Order: sequence, then C-alpha cells, then structure tokens
Amino acid sequence: MRLAARHPNIKITALIAKGHAGQMLAQVFPHLSSLDVPSLVTSDEVDWDEVDVAFCGLPHGTAHAEIAKLPSRVKVIDMSADFRLRDLGTYAEWYGGDHGAPELLEGAVYGLTELYRDQIASARLVACPGCYPTAVLLALLPLVKDELILPEDIIIDAKSGVSGAGRSLKQNILFSEAGEGLSPYGIGSHRHVPEIEQELGEAAGQPVIVNFTPHLVPMTRGELCTSYVRLTGKTTVADLRAALTSGYADSPFVRVVEEGVIPATQHVRGSNYCHIGVFADRIPGRGIVVSAIDNLVKGSAGQALQNFNLMHGLDETTALEQLPLFP
Amino acid sequence: MRLAARHPNIKITALIAKGHAGQMLAQVFPHLSSLDVPSLVTSDEVDWDEVDVAFCGLPHGTAHAEIAKLPSRVKVIDMSADFRLRDLGTYAEWYGGDHGAPELLEGAVYGLTELYRDQIASARLVACPGCYPTAVLLALLPLVKDELILPEDIIIDAKSGVSGAGRSLKQNILFSEAGEGLSPYGIGSHRHVPEIEQELGEAAGQPVIVNFTPHLVPMTRGELCTSYVRLTGKTTVADLRAALTSGYADSPFVRVVEEGVIPATQHVRGSNYCHIGVFADRIPGRGIVVSAIDNLVKGSAGQALQNFNLMHGLDETTALEQLPLFP
Amino acid sequence: MRLAARHPNIKITALIAKGHAGQMLAQVFPHLSSLDVPSLVTSDEVDWDEVDVAFCGLPHGTAHAEIAKLPSRVKVIDMSADFRLRDLGTYAEWYGGDHGAPELLEGAVYGLTELYRDQIASARLVACPGCYPTAVLLALLPLVKDELILPEDIIIDAKSGVSGAGRSLKQNILFSEAGEGLSPYGIGSHRHVPEIEQELGEAAGQPVIVNFTPHLVPMTRGELCTSYVRLTGKTTVADLRAALTSGYADSPFVRVVEEGVIPATQHVRGSNYCHIGVFADRIPGRGIVVSAIDNLVKGSAGQALQNFNLMHGLDETTALEQLPLFP
Amino acid sequence: MRLAARHPNIKITALIAKGHAGQMLAQVFPHLSSLDVPSLVTSDEVDWDEVDVAFCGLPHGTAHAEIAKLPSRVKVIDMSADFRLRDLGTYAEWYGGDHGAPELLEGAVYGLTELYRDQIASARLVACPGCYPTAVLLALLPLVKDELILPEDIIIDAKSGVSGAGRSLKQNILFSEAGEGLSPYGIGSHRHVPEIEQELGEAAGQPVIVNFTPHLVPMTRGELCTSYVRLTGKTTVADLRAALTSGYADSPFVRVVEEGVIPATQHVRGSNYCHIGVFADRIPGRGIVVSAIDNLVKGSAGQALQNFNLMHGLDETTALEQLPLFP
Repeated sequence: MRLAARHPNIKITALIAKGHAGQMLAQVFPHLSSLDVPSLVTSDEVDWDEVDVAFCGLPHGTAHAEIAKLPSRVKVIDMSADFRLRDLGTYAEWYGGDHGAPELLEGAVYGLTELYRDQIASARLVACPGCYPTAVLLALLPLVKDELILPEDIIIDAKSGVSGAGRSLKQNILFSEAGEGLSPYGIGSHRHVPEIEQELGEAAGQPVIVNFTPHLVPMTRGELCTSYVRLTGKTTVADLRAALTSGYADSPFVRVVEEGVIPATQHVRGSNYCHIGVFADRIPGRGIVVSAIDNLVKGSAGQALQNFNLMHGLDETTALEQLPLFP
Repeated sequence: MRLAARHPNIKITALIAKGHAGQMLAQVFPHLSSLDVPSLVTSDEVDWDEVDVAFCGLPHGTAHAEIAKLPSRVKVIDMSADFRLRDLGTYAEWYGGDHGAPELLEGAVYGLTELYRDQIASARLVACPGCYPTAVLLALLPLVKDELILPEDIIIDAKSGVSGAGRSLKQNILFSEAGEGLSPYGIGSHRHVPEIEQELGEAAGQPVIVNFTPHLVPMTRGELCTSYVRLTGKTTVADLRAALTSGYADSPFVRVVEEGVIPATQHVRGSNYCHIGVFADRIPGRGIVVSAIDNLVKGSAGQALQNFNLMHGLDETTALEQLPLFP
Repeated sequence: MRLAARHPNIKITALIAKGHAGQMLAQVFPHLSSLDVPSLVTSDEVDWDEVDVAFCGLPHGTAHAEIAKLPSRVKVIDMSADFRLRDLGTYAEWYGGDHGAPELLEGAVYGLTELYRDQIASARLVACPGCYPTAVLLALLPLVKDELILPEDIIIDAKSGVSGAGRSLKQNILFSEAGEGLSPYGIGSHRHVPEIEQELGEAAGQPVIVNFTPHLVPMTRGELCTSYVRLTGKTTVADLRAALTSGYADSPFVRVVEEGVIPATQHVRGSNYCHIGVFADRIPGRGIVVSAIDNLVKGSAGQALQNFNLMHGLDETTALEQLPLFP
Repeated sequence: MRLAARHPNIKITALIAKGHAGQMLAQVFPHLSSLDVPSLVTSDEVDWDEVDVAFCGLPHGTAHAEIAKLPSRVKVIDMSADFRLRDLGTYAEWYGGDHGAPELLEGAVYGLTELYRDQIASARLVACPGCYPTAVLLALLPLVKDELILPEDIIIDAKSGVSGAGRSLKQNILFSEAGEGLSPYGIGSHRHVPEIEQELGEAAGQPVIVNFTPHLVPMTRGELCTSYVRLTGKTTVADLRAALTSGYADSPFVRVVEEGVIPATQHVRGSNYCHIGVFADRIPGRGIVVSAIDNLVKGSAGQALQNFNLMHGLDETTALEQLPLFP
C-alpha cells in the first residue's frame, strides 16, 4: 500500500481483508491514514470488473483457493508460496497438503525479477519469491549457472529481521522475547529451502541440497545472507565478482558493492535494492558472498511492484525510486 | 540527500563537506551509493554561479559565518539554530557567543512552514526550526494564539530518538549506552527552549516561560511531545481539537488524528507528517496535546524541502509524498 | 524464579501454572534450564502442607479467588492488583467486577516496602504495588506527606519498557510494532491511577486526582516517571531533595542521586534499586522529580522478595544484592 | 566490578584508570554508585603491597607493558589479547608490533576454563580468551580433539552484540548506525582468528585454517556462533552431541541443550553460561554446532572470575551464580 498508493499507473479499486473487513484501512494501519482509499471488504464484495490486477498477500496454503476463483482476465501477483514450487509433491511435503489449483501452477512464473524478466513480462500469474530466496538466489544463481561454484557445497547462513514473521501473534516475536537476543530457527526445515533448491537445481542441471540456516535478529526490517561457497576449478573470487557485476549491469536494483565495501541491511532499508559483496575466504578455494535486502521491499512488496511494472511495459523502477532510509 | 535527489526541480550541483571533502558521497553514506552526484568539496571549491539555493546543515554557531559569505542572490535554507532567535542577547546566552551575521538575521524568516507560509514564500533566508520546536509549536502555537490555553502553565515532556543527537561521537549515544535505556537530559537547559518561548511569547503577546523536559529514547528516528496545558475560561478539550483541525485543514502534512486515536512516532516514520492528538486530563480544566514527527524529516530535512517548495512556488508536497515506513 | 532460586531461605516446593501445567520450567523459560525445581502443576495438585509462603503472579481479577482458597497459615505475597485498592467500589470500577474476597482485603497490606515496613513485617497478605505506582509513590509520597508539594497539581509523565505488558499475545507489543516507536497509551485511564490516587490521597488527607500519562518505550525493561509538581509556600527544590534524602537514608534500595546526576533506567536494570533525582523547573514555583526502576524487579518480583524478607525478619537485601546489569 | 564486588573472597583495594583517574567510579559508571570502593587512580599511585591479584582490562598491545611492571608475587588475570598467542610472530602479525614481555608469555596459560583447568589453577598469569574464541572453542575443541570433525573444513559464522566493541567512540557503533541493521565485519581478518586457529591446531596436531566471519547485531550483549562442520568417517551428529555432553558433565556453566532446543543469546544474558546445541545438516556428512554466550560475562569478565576461583581453590561458581536475565 505504501508503495502502490504512489504508483502513477495504479488505482486502488478494492482492498480485501478477512478479519478486518468493514473497517477503514486507517484503523488497521494508522500510518496510512492520509490515503483516500476504499474501506476493507471481503472478496465476495468486490466488483471484479473494476479489477485488472490482483496483488495477493494471503497466508501460504490459502492463496491458491482464492486465486483460483478470480476471473482469468485478472492478472495475479502472488506473494504467498503457493505458486513458487513447480513440483506438486514438494509442495505437499513442505506446505502440508495438496495443492488446490495445479492447473494454475503450470502457467505460473517464478517472479525473481532480475533473472526471469521475459517470462514475467508475459505472465498472467507471477509467484513472487520468498524473502530469503530472493537474497540467496540473486547472489548465487548466476554463479551456479556459470559453473563458478560447486552446487553441492553451499552453506547459507541467513539472518532476518522480525518483520519476516508477519503480524501474527506469536510469543517468540514479542518485543521482550526477540529484543536484545539472537538465535537460529527452523534449522534444516525452513520452508524457503525447497524454493532455493528448486532454482539452484535447475541452474545446475542436477538436484541440489543446500545448508540453509536462518537466524532471527532483533531488528524489524532487513535480511542478510552470508553464503559460503566452494569455487570450481581455477575460479577465483575475482571471477565471482566479475560475473555478478556484468550480470547485473542492467539491473537498477541489484548493486555489486565495490571491493572493500561490506553490504549492510541498514543501507538498503525501505528500498528495493539488493547489495551484494564478494569476499575471499581464508580457506583456499572458497569464497563468501554476502547479500542484503529489505525483506519487506525487494523481499516482498517491492519486487511484486517491480514485476507489475514489467508485466505492464513500464519502467522497472516506477514507484520504487525511494532511496534507502538511513539512519 | 535522500529526498532532494528525487526532487524534480532540484539539481545537485555541489556537495560541501569539511572532514570528508575529496571523498565520494557513497563513502560517507553507503546507502546513497546509487546516486550519481558530484563528489564532496570544500566551500571554497564551489562555483557559486551554479548555485541558486543552498541547504545548510552546519553545526550551530558555525553556520552564520559560512552563510554570510554566500552571494546574496543565493537563497538559503538553514537547518542550524543560527538564524532562529531574533534576539541577539538570547542567542549569545544560549549558544555561547556573539552572532556573526546580525545583518542577515533581520531578514531571516522562522521556517515553521504551516504557520509562516507567506513570509517563507518571499524570504531569502529561512531558518528551519529545531526538531522539538517543530513538534511543540505545531501543537501549541494555534492554541496560544487563540487564547485557548494559558501560556504561563505549559509543561512539555518531550521524547526523541537518538538520531536527534546527530552523527558526532559521544559516549551517551553509543548503541550499548543508549540501547535498552531511557533518561531525561538537558533538564531546563535544552537549547530548543528559547526558540519555543520566542514563538509562544510572540503569539501570547507577553514573555512566556515553559517547562521543557526532553528524554532520550532507544530508537533512531521519531519525536513525540506530550504537552500538559491549562484551559482558559470555558474552553474545553473539544475546542482545542476543533481549533487545530480547522487551523490545519489546508496543511497536507499536519493531521489531527481522530478522537480515540493516539499519535505514535512509528506512524510518521520516514515521512513529513506531524500527527497531533488532543486528550482530556483527569484533572479538571486541563488538557493534553500529543504531537509526533520524524525528527529527521518534518523536524529537519523534510521541512527544509517543504520550505524550498514554498519559496519556489511549487506544490508544498513535491518530493515529500513518501508515506510513512511502517513497520 | 531468577531471584528466588538463589535465596538462601527459600526452597521452591511447588510451581503452579495453568496452561503450562505438566511441563518442565525449562520448557517455558529456557534461561532457567539449569535449575533443579519441581515441574509445573495445577493448584489442585499442590500439597499445601509443604508450603509456607505463596508468591502469586496471577492476572488481575483472578488472583482473589485463588488466594481465598489457600490455607490461612500460608502467607501470601500477591503481585496482582486484587488487594491493592481498599475501596471495593473503586476496585469494581477499574477492574470490571466485584471483588471475590473482601474479607481478605481488610487484612491486606499495601506492599510499598520503604513506606510501610512495619505493616508489611506483620502481615499475612501483602499486595505488592504496580510497577508505575512503585516508581511514582517512592518519589512523591514523602513530598505530599510533608506538604512540600500541592496534591492537586501533580502531572506524571510515565514511560515503560514493553515487558510491563507481560507475555500475553497482543499486536501492539510485537517487536515490529513496538520497536523503533513511541506512543502514549491508556491516557487518563490506566489502571494504576486509582492506586496512586489512593496512596497520595491518604497522605494528603483529602481526595487527590492526578494526571498520569504512560508511554510505551521500545526497550524491554525499565520504567521512568517524570513528575511535574508545584511547590507549597516557600518550599524550594532543595527542600524536596533534602526530604527524600533523609527519608530514604536507611533504605538500601532507594537512592537519591547527587545533584547534577540524572536517573536513567539503564542504571538500575536488573536490580532492585530505585533512583530518584530532583530538578528545578524553569517555571518558578515548580519542580521536577524523576524516578527510575526496573519494572520487573523493584516494580514487581524484587519488591515481592524484599517484602518476603521483611515478613521473615531477614535482612531486606537478601537475594537482592545483584548490581544493575549495564551495559 | 558488577560481579567482583559481590565476591566473598575479593576485596577491591585499588581501581586503576587512565583518563578517568581522580574520579569516583560512580562518575564513570553510575549504575555502580551504590558501591563503596576506592576512587580511580593511575597505576603509579597503587600500593602494590595491598594487591594479591590484578584483573587487567587494558587495550590489546598496551597490557603487556603494564603487566611486566607488576611485582611477580601479584597474580594476573588478563582480559587483553597480549598473552593469548604463544607464537611471537603471529602476535606481531595480528597485533601490529613486537611483544613487549616475551619472558612472561612463556608462563602464561590460555584461560579457557573448562578445557585448561589444571594449568589455570597453578598459573601466575592467565590470558583469558577473546569472546568469540570462547564461544567457538567450547563448541569445537572437544570435537577436533576426538577427531569427530575435519579441522580443514570449519566454517564459523559468528554474531555479536555491539558491546563487543567496547566503550570507545566509533561511528559504526553509534545507536543510529548500528541499530536496526546487520552486517558482517572484519571478514577474514578478525583478530580472534589466530587464537582460534592456535587452539584448534594444537588439538588437531596440525596447522588449521578456519573460516571465521563475524557479524555485528543490533543488541548490546550476546554472542552466537553457528559452526558448520564436516564429520569424519562414520561419525554422526549424535556422536557430536554425546561427546560434548559427556565432556562437559562436570562443567557447571556449559550446558549442551536438549535435542530440539535451540540456543539463544537471550537465554544466557548476564550470566556465565554457555549453551551449545548440535544439529543435523541437510547436506549429508555435515553437522551444525551452535554456541551462545554473554560476551561480557563468559566471554570476558565472568570467565576471568571463574579463573580467579580456580586459581584460589574456590568453587568455580563463586560469585557467578546469577541466573540469566530474561526478558
């Protein structure tokens, strides 16, 4: 809403909510009280003739049913996980149930903007990546594709701010529990793993298993992935840097930072940027790739809007020009 | 820089720095590395023919000397305290020295946008208010003017995030010192007091002494002032609310929140908004006015840009349309 | 538990829980996993013959019923609000229902240790004050008693860390909601008001109405009250300081800080100390009293233990010797 | 000071400071204002006949000179890095200069309590480990010793709170810079690397090179190391857990947490505990070891006091019984 409300080509015709239907947006999000938008309604109350594009932010496992009900002329930009995994068995295994709209899955495009621009531009249904996969894949996918790193020896130590857990009421994300503390969670079992492995596996041309260990960090926004990789053959760390730099030369939001500069989440806060840094490892033959995003922007709503722009032939940066908010 | 770089009518022709002259902006502020701007220079290196407007963010007590050197055709928007106080004696008393450019002071306008629009529009030199005075005066000045509250019984309990102290190296603003802690500071002696008293005094038509007690809060951005006031005669809290609501009806950035809603700094974060709420006091005949701003936006750079817009006949909101960043 | 488990005269014979009954303490509080204590049970499962003293930390409105069931030989130290208010009507008004054990209320003692030592020492049932009342009353009660300040013109601007809201699941205390933000709450309606007014009123010998405005601060522990008071007759701020200093000369946990020092919550964190500072107001005839505590220690469990010590003829500081944890 | 002042066998006879000499401790650390201790002096002013043990917390590179001046009968517990590295060349390389007291180095003992108890007990000079090495070595040293993990493939992703940087004035540890942000630092060049490699190398019987990548986390206290290891031969993750559990059976402060429990810094905050968890990696043949400490306690002053206890035949836990402060 924060970004879309300022998009010159977007008119907000309906705002759907479940528990909050009937309320004004300002009651749920007082920071948006200056906006003149429709009040919240249930999906049944929407006049879909007025809608060209639907942005969906439903919980995983519930989005597919709602999206299946939409008129086929409505383009869909989904931020749930429901259309990210191409294998129905993998979906059922990780999300605890059968997929309700396998027929839609086939046409869905994985919305990692920088790497799937063409497919996104012509898609009806775009499945925006999870926040972690966005940070991980932007950093590693080009390296696996170019066979610069070994796909079987990738260790991803990921760190996320608390907003990654959403606004639901859970004890571990209370201020007094999460504040001034740090811990891993979901070790080996985080739902973003299959997404990462799907994309890396496709790039590698073989099944890939990665170590992915997320940590909960006492900050609201921001995600940083420190990926430990093994270089192939005579590849050097400079080769990694060169591949990423040239690969993202035409991508306004992905910046490979200069040598010696270290990515930091506070330097992308509130923006759609992804900063990537490449570093030598003390252990010979290994490298470190660090990627930082704002999980709520490039990791979610910002990338959704970026995909919207692509799908409508607009400049990719429209409504995403905001610079990072620092300090 | 964050805001100005996206302003359609601003071209950044020079960036002046002292200690950092010779560096690229990105070295000092990595979050701005995507900007294509000139590198930092000393003021001597600037070709002033290229400059129409100077935004000054120098330390108090040093701005007046630098501003005095500027060609008179250059408009100046000053964010220091040097041109806020109209009385030279008061300036000397609170800022520890004689004023170096009293001749400029005369033409300077106090840049509290919503209350001095006409004067700002035609000024050459605008002295943007301090962050605290902005939050306090937007809340109280109309009430004193309209004789709705007693000017001799105003208690302002102010709270600010740590960025209010700037980027200078002081022990009390280290993360481990300020984090997870709260304390008042500068009790009775904060330099924003004379500014508040000057403006309230002028509105009251008599000298005014206020209680102003600032507190340091463990957050980066945000400022909230809880003002405890005594109502005049038959004035009610509803009268206060009505006066503020109508007074700011044409001010896009000042929002008197609905009854029952409580202003919060997180609801204006990163934006130029000021939220004001009015509440009854349990003590009969008294009221509470709560005002919240982002100290770095409405309390500083945002208001500066808003004044720039006024001074150039632009829509007041140009480049300030960003909605608050929440969470 | 943190403090009691290290008390030389306390043996923990039973730990009562509702939802968590059947679990080990370490499952609910992993930081206490090193303790060798009984697992959690319901109150029905307790062998009360083994119990001499019960520390009660039940929600307001539910404690009185549970306490009424206890054998009369069991001393009770209650941290709920159920036995703090001596007037049944006031209790019903603020806590939304009739009191279930009025007969116990009569013998209950208000457990503000420093001010009611004698009564506490001989009580069977001690009602420990709320966190805010502790900080407020330690600062103001002696001043009202000595007629140094006017009871009808007391403005208390209170600030608390988020742990004051407990561990219950509420949206406003999620990390991403409360973090990096500040706002007042419960303006004029906070349940600690009647407690404060009861005690100040008794000291004043007349009904007292105060302004009490609490604010939620983005930190876990700590509470600071800035009280704005009007001095009586020829009273000076030095008189306030002198009264507090001599009044607390024999109170090891209340420290009137030296002139020029400003209390800060981080300087009492994790400890049972209360720091009080007295300051002149710019407005003649007024003063400012600042008091800081750790809301979970002096504001709750620490004071409970301090009362336990008094009730058993032990040194008041037993098991409370821990110094503040800074940084 | 916080811990030592409550130690039954310690009498503080002198407090040495440089810049603060002449001041009272309470002026430098107001949270310790309740202590009755000598005021701060320079080292020249100390009557060393009154001193049996010196705790040294001097900056790296300056401690050796000061310690060399002490009477040889004074036992020394050093928290700087000056006596941790046994190889003078390594010291010079990492700490930028020749060692000033090589003769003392020979008798110095590396003070990782749980692993060098005997040597510490009889030492005159104990070099307490750095905070990171403490967390890393407690987790990994027994595993390398027992040949359960490969010493040439150890990746340590470390995260520390900001207090690890001390109280010195650096821009990156200002509240507004470090708050709400996360980044790696000192990639491949952190001074704790040689310490870790020295100890692991000695255990492995061969030189060891590790990946050690520290991150700065927006919290004050706490350190968590996520170590990614490759298992030897038929070793399983259960073997790692068994080795650590039995190895620390008699170590009161090191707790191998139960299966399924994940270490978190908030669960050891303010205490001398180290929590260690062992987890399977999705990549076959690999494991993950997570260790958490409070960097200022077990990572520094707490371990120093623990060593003091050992050196004086006291119970290892004396004055360290405080339970973690949560929340």
